[in-house]
Amino acid sequence: MPRFRDTSLQNSKNTVARKERKKDPKNIRRTIDPAALEMIDHAKENNIITVFERWSAQQPQCAFGYQGICCRICIQGPCRIKAEEGPGSMGICGARDYVIVERNLIRTVCGGTSAHSDHARHIAHVLLHAAEGHAPDYKVADPDKLRRVAQRLGITINGKSDTELAKEVAETALADMGKQDDTPCKFLWTSITEGRRTKYSDCDIVPTSVDRAVVEGIHRTHIGVDADCTSLACGALKIALADYTGMKIATDLSDILFGTPKPVMSEANLGVIDPEKVNIIVHGHNPLLSQMVVDTAKEMEEAAKAAGAKGIQISGICCTGNEVLMRSGVPIATSFMGQELALATGAIDVMVVDVQCIMPATRNVAECFNTKLVTTMPIAKITGSHHLAFDESRAIESSKTIIELAIEAFKARKASGRPVKVPQYKNKVMAGFSFEALMDVFAGVNPENPVSVLTDAILNGEILGVCLLCGCNNLESPYDHAHTTIIKGLAENNVFMVATGCSAQAAAKHGLMNSEGVEKYAGAGLKAFLARLYEANKNKLPDKLPLVFHMGSCVDNSRAAELWTAMANELGVDVPKVPFVGTAPEAMSEKAGSIGTWVVTHGIPTHVGCMLPVEGSHLVWSVLHCIAHDVAGGNIILENDPEVAVEKLVASLDYRAWKLGVHKKAAEQYEAALCQMY
Amino acid sequence: MPRFRDTSLQNSKNTVARKERKKDPKNIRRTIDPAALEMIDHAKENNIITVFERWSAQQPQCAFGYQGICCRICIQGPCRIKAEEGPGSMGICGARDYVIVERNLIRTVCGGTSAHSDHARHIAHVLLHAAEGHAPDYKVADPDKLRRVAQRLGITINGKSDTELAKEVAETALADMGKQDDTPCKFLWTSITEGRRTKYSDCDIVPTSVDRAVVEGIHRTHIGVDADCTSLACGALKIALADYTGMKIATDLSDILFGTPKPVMSEANLGVIDPEKVNIIVHGHNPLLSQMVVDTAKEMEEAAKAAGAKGIQISGICCTGNEVLMRSGVPIATSFMGQELALATGAIDVMVVDVQCIMPATRNVAECFNTKLVTTMPIAKITGSHHLAFDESRAIESSKTIIELAIEAFKARKASGRPVKVPQYKNKVMAGFSFEALMDVFAGVNPENPVSVLTDAILNGEILGVCLLCGCNNLESPYDHAHTTIIKGLAENNVFMVATGCSAQAAAKHGLMNSEGVEKYAGAGLKAFLARLYEANKNKLPDKLPLVFHMGSCVDNSRAAELWTAMANELGVDVPKVPFVGTAPEAMSEKAGSIGTWVVTHGIPTHVGCMLPVEGSHLVWSVLHCIAHDVAGGNIILENDPEVAVEKLVASLDYRAWKLGVHKKAAEQYEAALCQMY
Repeated sequence: MPRFRDTSLQNSKNTVARKERKKDPKNIRRTIDPAALEMIDHAKENNIITVFERWSAQQPQCAFGYQGICCRICIQGPCRIKAEEGPGSMGICGARDYVIVERNLIRTVCGGTSAHSDHARHIAHVLLHAAEGHAPDYKVADPDKLRRVAQRLGITINGKSDTELAKEVAETALADMGKQDDTPCKFLWTSITEGRRTKYSDCDIVPTSVDRAVVEGIHRTHIGVDADCTSLACGALKIALADYTGMKIATDLSDILFGTPKPVMSEANLGVIDPEKVNIIVHGHNPLLSQMVVDTAKEMEEAAKAAGAKGIQISGICCTGNEVLMRSGVPIATSFMGQELALATGAIDVMVVDVQCIMPATRNVAECFNTKLVTTMPIAKITGSHHLAFDESRAIESSKTIIELAIEAFKARKASGRPVKVPQYKNKVMAGFSFEALMDVFAGVNPENPVSVLTDAILNGEILGVCLLCGCNNLESPYDHAHTTIIKGLAENNVFMVATGCSAQAAAKHGLMNSEGVEKYAGAGLKAFLARLYEANKNKLPDKLPLVFHMGSCVDNSRAAELWTAMANELGVDVPKVPFVGTAPEAMSEKAGSIGTWVVTHGIPTHVGCMLPVEGSHLVWSVLHCIAHDVAGGNIILENDPEVAVEKLVASLDYRAWKLGVHKKAAEQYEAALCQMY
Repeated sequence: MPRFRDTSLQNSKNTVARKERKKDPKNIRRTIDPAALEMIDHAKENNIITVFERWSAQQPQCAFGYQGICCRICIQGPCRIKAEEGPGSMGICGARDYVIVERNLIRTVCGGTSAHSDHARHIAHVLLHAAEGHAPDYKVADPDKLRRVAQRLGITINGKSDTELAKEVAETALADMGKQDDTPCKFLWTSITEGRRTKYSDCDIVPTSVDRAVVEGIHRTHIGVDADCTSLACGALKIALADYTGMKIATDLSDILFGTPKPVMSEANLGVIDPEKVNIIVHGHNPLLSQMVVDTAKEMEEAAKAAGAKGIQISGICCTGNEVLMRSGVPIATSFMGQELALATGAIDVMVVDVQCIMPATRNVAECFNTKLVTTMPIAKITGSHHLAFDESRAIESSKTIIELAIEAFKARKASGRPVKVPQYKNKVMAGFSFEALMDVFAGVNPENPVSVLTDAILNGEILGVCLLCGCNNLESPYDHAHTTIIKGLAENNVFMVATGCSAQAAAKHGLMNSEGVEKYAGAGLKAFLARLYEANKNKLPDKLPLVFHMGSCVDNSRAAELWTAMANELGVDVPKVPFVGTAPEAMSEKAGSIGTWVVTHGIPTHVGCMLPVEGSHLVWSVLHCIAHDVAGGNIILENDPEVAVEKLVASLDYRAWKLGVHKKAAEQYEAALCQMY
């Protein structure tokens, strides 16, 4: 008789969430964010359904789907792995648990890669059109970066104008998206270590174009194609490297078009909303829209004042918020999980969105308050919202229309006397730490060799290593709880932290992205290191350095890769030996899946704080935790208790730092021995 | 209180299967194929698990997945639409039932498109390499077709060699795969009616490259992107047209490389296996491998005889079987659902596979008999099988290795005295009806205007119209039952039938692809029409014409599109007015999903005999059945009773034929009135 599978793993799921909620006397604790808590109550009182109720309504979730052993790839399905042996231990086609889990994972990586690379393509097209004169409102804002990127790509730069170079860089990016020959993607190949290039060639996981890698991945997971664990796993790595390629394009080209971020002061959390101003929220991911709205709004302050407003208040949600925070100091309203709560304040006049992570439910909340929800992109419409096709060839004009709409909505709001509720919580934020900005800070200490300031601090034991904090929110753990717990834990252990996405927004909202955070939470070594950096840069920094360095949006995880690549080259090792870890404490989207996969492929141990759908296969579990480490040098650390996650991350850094020390010592002894011999 | 959703629709599911099984005294009826029935019993007696047991083990299937209202797109899921209202009526992000159903459908279309287009890309690369001299075993086999295709694509052909033209055609195909500008894909744009071009432009569903369309589709369905029913539906149509583009490339380029099929005689069903010969099964989809194996085997007959065999018997499964049947008369062993049963005969020495629809379970059956299962493609490995990387630059050499392996396996089989069981069922088949071959038959009657022979027969009421039979097998209805029931029903109603894929194989196995089928099942009109065609072509045809015309593999559904396009142009109308319908009676794979979608988008009413996962949304159901018709001119007809399906298909044809007649009459009256006036 076939044995039935143990699906009780499901019970492991919400241990932490449950533990946290038990601590809460009302047993309704969904977040540690006081602004969000206030708004959750407010929404409930006003019968507004938010994500917090929808999450509860979905419990308990299907254990088969949760464990990754439900297959809906062909129309004969859904199939579920129901037994340990016999016919029920396979799908109808004969796919075993590991095949089903891996196929689903690959499709997740394809999802993230498609999102990032379509974003990259959009920017590349606009850069091309700008260079060709078809998008006159966009200009090369950072000619230095343009030249650096062109040079890295092997483009001859001498004697060429910015326009000529921009065109060539954009064309190279578009070639990386779609070319059909067998050469590696250039944005990948020119931005990684020699060791990584060798490793990827050896494993046959070099993407030749981003789009093709995605299509190959989807094909590989079609019914009756790949059914081998190693082959499927390598397939996932290849697509993930395509994802990295797209993200690198997005970051590089955004910097060229809008400027490379520099340290800037701002604020974060719902308290940044000012009911007396025209409130516009930019939400989504792509700076092509948000940066234009921000720039145009500056010139429309008078129009807003004429309508009776104190001015225009733009604030951001999700990564487009990060983009305009990094470059223009626009405050953060909230992160992914709080998007409905921002609308529930009743104070938002227009929420303008582009692509990705825009809950369809925003429309339901917006219409409770006559807030205009404006969609702008052809592939991202929401039934019942206001669609305004954003036209890059007349970007300022499109932006003006949006702002005019917001001014009209402000007037209507004021005329209606609609009550608003803005929770009075916000925190000071220092953002803008692109790789270049970070190097600039290190250059204050050592202008000759900036990155050595960081690696020396590790070698000397002043700091333990570096951690990239990234990813989303996921109600499997209370909103922002895992992010902040991990930040505090790592700070205590003297880990230098860079952050992106909703992780950066968690740090920002909770006062961990300013110098007060350093005072409260940093260990002695980290405190000393940051103080030393500040001393050397006193004159050019707007404030003391923060506990967590904001590196940008999700696509800007490529900036972190630039950092570990520079560290590896400085240390004379490949990335898997650099004391660098990553964590996505509250991973939610497919993009988190693809990012996590390439971070691991780069050689970085990467913690994920929410359960990935892999529990259904011990084999895949082992691949992620162990075999990935043997092959790529990085591995996934699935751990949903953030305190335990801190221990595991610290242990990873400790081991790498110790090993570096051992190697350094051995090299010194060897050199000494050589000297003695001759 | 939110009401719970009615998930009892699930009960509608297997009515037909149940009805059929009830007729069977043993109540285990899984197929109407006598060869398969014999082998199912044989496998059972030998404790071999096959798809028939695995299908049973999966029952009952999850109603949420079955209805399309389970979402696993982000890591917060799985979410299920559990209630009609309240928080449970949405996913965690707020996605309603229609958003979830449509996102899942789009990903299905992306799956099919990726599979077909990767196949097309492979052929385009080999054509390019052949033209450049890097794949010397491949040659331009049909220079006429090469020139016709080049001319259609707008390539100047005068004064160019085959090699030059082949290179340009291959490059045009590869550009259609990956280019990043905004012009339509050429293989699409040059092969459809003017009316379709206008329609697709108006609806903004013109793909600019195949890969990009897939990536956009995956991006569109990422969490928080598209949440509008119309926008999502149009997204699906755009990707489906990209699928058509890939299939058109695959068909055109295969004909150029291997020759355009012409009428050929062969046989089908497991009885074609000869235990005294070296038995090689080619299984998968791409002729690059199978055609080479077939060609090489001819030269290795002696080696096989030296090993004690009577010769080499190659037979095919799935579409690669159709490819070599169409071009070389290689018999069909069985179709998708019978792949394990072929292995269970014990008489197969090597099963060599490329990509798609190869059940992972084949390995389990193969190892029961020491049959060598040989995988050949980098993205399609099966743990435990023999992997032989097929090298297109040395294709004959690779093929020789495979055949030598088979000869060795034959020797081992004979030495072991392993018992074999080959069910003695097979039927005569006439295949090879490419669009060109079909026109050639019509030209026998009217050499000036071949296609008018078909349209006139419809206008005169001799035949009712044309039906494309396509798609897979799906155990939701007994194996081959729906295919054959529909064929017989349509034949009785004088419908001219063309078939591809596993539908063609059903016709072939069951004696419906020869002239005996005509005698038994055709209505008077169809019988007369086929007799008339035969009379006019007596000298050049190998036999009387069949009841169902084999048009090729699944990618060759593009041949059917060529047929309805020619008919539309001849009739002076757009495709939605041509009496042409499609049916996928036993649809299973994502490819069936993408094909069905583009057939509808071309303007063809298309029956699907297995339930698509759309029951969870009345809105999507209506879009498929009604709104699609209003917009694209074609629609989906979901109907799992094949007898009712026949009625619905006949009604569709009847309506279109009647309307054509009305229009014709009106035009004649108008002309007569004009004559009277002047």
